[in-house]
Amino acid sequence: MTFNAPVKDIAFAMNHVAGLKKAIDNGTYAELSDDMVETILEEAGKFANEMVAPLNRDGDTVGAKLIDGQVKTAPGWKDTYNAWTEAGWATLTGSPEYGGQGLPHLLASACYEMWSSASMAWCLGPILTGGGVEALTYHGSQELKDRYLEKLITGEWMATMNLTEPEAGSDLAPMKTRATPKGDGTYLIKGQKIFISYGDHDLTDNIIHLVLARLPDAPAGTRGISLFLVPKFLPDGTRNDAHPTSLEHKMGIHGSPTAVMEFGAGEGAVGWLIGEENRGLACMFTMMNNARLNVGIEGVGIAERAYQQALAYAKERRQARAVGTPKDAPMSAIIEHPDVKRMLLTMKALTQVSRGICYMTSAALDEQHLGADDAAKKAGANRAALLTPIAKAFSTDVGNEVSSLGVQVHGGAGFIEETGAAQHMRDARIAAIYEGTNGIQAIDLVTRKLPLENGEVVFAQIAAIRATAKAVAKAGSEHGETAARLRDAAESLDQATSFLLKAVSADLNTALAVATPYLRLFGLVLGGSILAEMAMASAAALASGETDPAHKGRIALSRFYAENLLLEAASLSALVLNGASSVMNAEEALAD
Amino acid sequence: MTFNAPVKDIAFAMNHVAGLKKAIDNGTYAELSDDMVETILEEAGKFANEMVAPLNRDGDTVGAKLIDGQVKTAPGWKDTYNAWTEAGWATLTGSPEYGGQGLPHLLASACYEMWSSASMAWCLGPILTGGGVEALTYHGSQELKDRYLEKLITGEWMATMNLTEPEAGSDLAPMKTRATPKGDGTYLIKGQKIFISYGDHDLTDNIIHLVLARLPDAPAGTRGISLFLVPKFLPDGTRNDAHPTSLEHKMGIHGSPTAVMEFGAGEGAVGWLIGEENRGLACMFTMMNNARLNVGIEGVGIAERAYQQALAYAKERRQARAVGTPKDAPMSAIIEHPDVKRMLLTMKALTQVSRGICYMTSAALDEQHLGADDAAKKAGANRAALLTPIAKAFSTDVGNEVSSLGVQVHGGAGFIEETGAAQHMRDARIAAIYEGTNGIQAIDLVTRKLPLENGEVVFAQIAAIRATAKAVAKAGSEHGETAARLRDAAESLDQATSFLLKAVSADLNTALAVATPYLRLFGLVLGGSILAEMAMASAAALASGETDPAHKGRIALSRFYAENLLLEAASLSALVLNGASSVMNAEEALAD
Repeated sequence: MTFNAPVKDIAFAMNHVAGLKKAIDNGTYAELSDDMVETILEEAGKFANEMVAPLNRDGDTVGAKLIDGQVKTAPGWKDTYNAWTEAGWATLTGSPEYGGQGLPHLLASACYEMWSSASMAWCLGPILTGGGVEALTYHGSQELKDRYLEKLITGEWMATMNLTEPEAGSDLAPMKTRATPKGDGTYLIKGQKIFISYGDHDLTDNIIHLVLARLPDAPAGTRGISLFLVPKFLPDGTRNDAHPTSLEHKMGIHGSPTAVMEFGAGEGAVGWLIGEENRGLACMFTMMNNARLNVGIEGVGIAERAYQQALAYAKERRQARAVGTPKDAPMSAIIEHPDVKRMLLTMKALTQVSRGICYMTSAALDEQHLGADDAAKKAGANRAALLTPIAKAFSTDVGNEVSSLGVQVHGGAGFIEETGAAQHMRDARIAAIYEGTNGIQAIDLVTRKLPLENGEVVFAQIAAIRATAKAVAKAGSEHGETAARLRDAAESLDQATSFLLKAVSADLNTALAVATPYLRLFGLVLGGSILAEMAMASAAALASGETDPAHKGRIALSRFYAENLLLEAASLSALVLNGASSVMNAEEALAD
Repeated sequence: MTFNAPVKDIAFAMNHVAGLKKAIDNGTYAELSDDMVETILEEAGKFANEMVAPLNRDGDTVGAKLIDGQVKTAPGWKDTYNAWTEAGWATLTGSPEYGGQGLPHLLASACYEMWSSASMAWCLGPILTGGGVEALTYHGSQELKDRYLEKLITGEWMATMNLTEPEAGSDLAPMKTRATPKGDGTYLIKGQKIFISYGDHDLTDNIIHLVLARLPDAPAGTRGISLFLVPKFLPDGTRNDAHPTSLEHKMGIHGSPTAVMEFGAGEGAVGWLIGEENRGLACMFTMMNNARLNVGIEGVGIAERAYQQALAYAKERRQARAVGTPKDAPMSAIIEHPDVKRMLLTMKALTQVSRGICYMTSAALDEQHLGADDAAKKAGANRAALLTPIAKAFSTDVGNEVSSLGVQVHGGAGFIEETGAAQHMRDARIAAIYEGTNGIQAIDLVTRKLPLENGEVVFAQIAAIRATAKAVAKAGSEHGETAARLRDAAESLDQATSFLLKAVSADLNTALAVATPYLRLFGLVLGGSILAEMAMASAAALASGETDPAHKGRIALSRFYAENLLLEAASLSALVLNGASSVMNAEEALAD
């Protein structure tokens, strides 16, 4: 088995970080029960292990191919996709009105994490379709919903997102694709979109493209962009003029076809407006939080996969003898060497931290939709808004770091493609870039999320971290220096936050120049409280007589994190407070 | 032009960090003159730009191929190699007795850096041959030297290093390859070696393999390993039984053929002993410092290449409008955005720091060989010994970081292979692994290098950093907070060093568990003093009336580094002092 879905760890994080059990008891999650959650996680994990993970290597080596204008996916991809829809996995979060199960985002996050671990390139297709479902659910006309939602929610058809153009990436304002009303309620779409994931494929009979375009005489900039639905096959069965013209050669996720899409190069591509005219970006933003969160989840997934592989290798590979081993003993497994231990602990801790952040975010999204009252919903929405850029950027940075450490643990073998460690690193690399680069996330966090409710949202989060630090201080000595380190780290985060809240209004460039280190700081400190909460829950479980050795593991991991990685918070905070001016005054340093 | 060798930056670092000018004036470098250095750098840079850089992409996409038992290199590789030897570049450091120019290591480092930037995979062949030359020069019999040295020094033939076996990587003790005396002064070599870079190729007519193997009845472990010379073609022209049986599929450096080498599978591979029986590892260690330094140089080279490419893209690519730009202005070049500025400054600063560390190490190696007296030679040897693991590990970590940032600066385009940014990241990844993983370097630094002369060597280095901090304090206000930050950082390094010097003898596992963060700390702090020295030299040049804008750039870069990146020193030092016990007591965390 190349991958073993960490169902127990996932369930623990859902309960003790994202408050699943509490929410079930509160009734937030309506008909959901502990047993249902357990069953779903077990089965999703089994599907990841047995059906998705075996696809991953062929996805990389064979990849997706464009043959005669039609994309062919790698061997086995279609069969697994069919098995996945037949088992009903596509319907998890969709509206029950259209065949969905209406389950919470938190549960979907856990499933997507396991499938992304198994094959990030494969899982990307379902993730994107989920985004399309959301856009259509919230903004589509009744007619469009009736025509497309059930097909998409059941996975019979898939959806794509068409935003990027050669000149319009992080900034969509210069977008050029045009939409001309035909007078019959439809539009003719004309233009080129690039970097379109799953732009074409053979997994489903039809593909529903969501395309951003400009109406004639639309205002310039992002306020003149509308959203259109452009199906590969029109309702009458004719092929629409929306074609993949080439596939990109990418560093990783070769199994995911990344197409250049040409709309309306011939007779014209027929599309339908979604939402209001010139409000396309707002429609896209509705689902942005969820899409960004899901990319964060990809980071968690690839980190978990890389960790499992490195751990297994480190237990098997023998080199040299660890300190204290008798001279005539065989060589030690490399996991016995302290430097390898450090790498593995770092990998595991960062993976669990990023998982916790993503699940917290999912739970906040659920609260936004399912909260008991408007106040609860608003609190959920604010919390989700604050955490989303951190979930996206911190977790995908972690995906890069952990997968690179995974290569390092393997030594020379890690550089050999057959080992598989290198593929994780190559696959992971895109997640820090797409759905808004991590730099864009940091800017979003600092300029739009910190000021929410005059800073109340962010300071509530910091107060929660401080409360965790206080709780650890009252807990046993097994937590080592965790309480003090977490308290210091929260103080560092508080100072940096106060500084930035002022800078955002007084001196925007200062805020922008330190946004990325600030996001890192936030994720790092939040991570300390996440691991500490799990460690305290494990300590309580042990005290109540449970004997699962994973509990001791969680306590040790939290302590490792607090006494090693969390120390960086002080430096990062100092950087946020002092670093901007030398960035902004370094023109000459970048002159050549 | 895809690459422009940074000759001016290199010369500045050679003079103001590695003390080249001073050494020339002192007479350390005998007949070398400033003019000669300038000419050599200019010409080597031109060769890198015009002849080597164009090979790099085909090297990646076509790569080296094993066809009918013979490796064929990528298109153009052989022509460029021939041009390189014909221009005399192979002879730089070789002994004049055998056709070499006897030039200092420092100069060779600069050339290797430029060629590695141009194509790391191509330059690896010459680098390995240099290692072979060194082993033969210091340990070969007169007969072997006369037979092989001139051919290798002129580059007519190339050399390989055959150490690794499936069970013997970081630890060579379990090596199995056998050498049996034939009674005529030669040996029959039998065994398999893996990961042999340039194990076979078509660049030269003959290849001289240096192979570690065990004599019959040799002691177990590393004290029973001898070094043998095994030519592809024997002196009488017959093909020796040393064959590549397969090439690895690697994450990067596809142009460099990485072979599984089978010695003596048929009639037997004939070899000659180099140095004394059972002293093979000592022979290898002689050249280890130089080989490790050269891998560090690869890290510098790839970082420089990635930086240049990212900088060019950031100046050209336009997205959004920077703060303060009029609303009707066109979109800003992304270099105007503070977050992109931060990435580029980080790339440039880390590249220059790693260059400085490598050149300091080269200069110390030169001092070891050319020093005015035994005391100077010994000081050079000690300094080289201390700095080598830092040069290797810090610089190759920088290669990974900077090339990954290079991808990030490119956004989505960075993930597309045609852009080239991804190749740098894939190529860079091996340098942190081969010639001793970076973990091994950290262990070497902490356990063998810190204790040199009872710590005098390391504390002399820290004293030099403190002296730089004092000098900056007396310099102008253009250096911002550099003096204070560098002083604090030196204090952090001092504390961590004192702690580790005790731990190495008292509690080895503690030292091993924090060795990697300590090496990072050392490189980071040394880097602060390197950039500060260059900034002060530039300030002096400006004061004396020079107008090159690069001087202001160096001052700005040093300040950026001190007020941003150098801040991490405090956290790393705290980690070294406090982090080990939670690493060593985390067994349960890695149980599954």
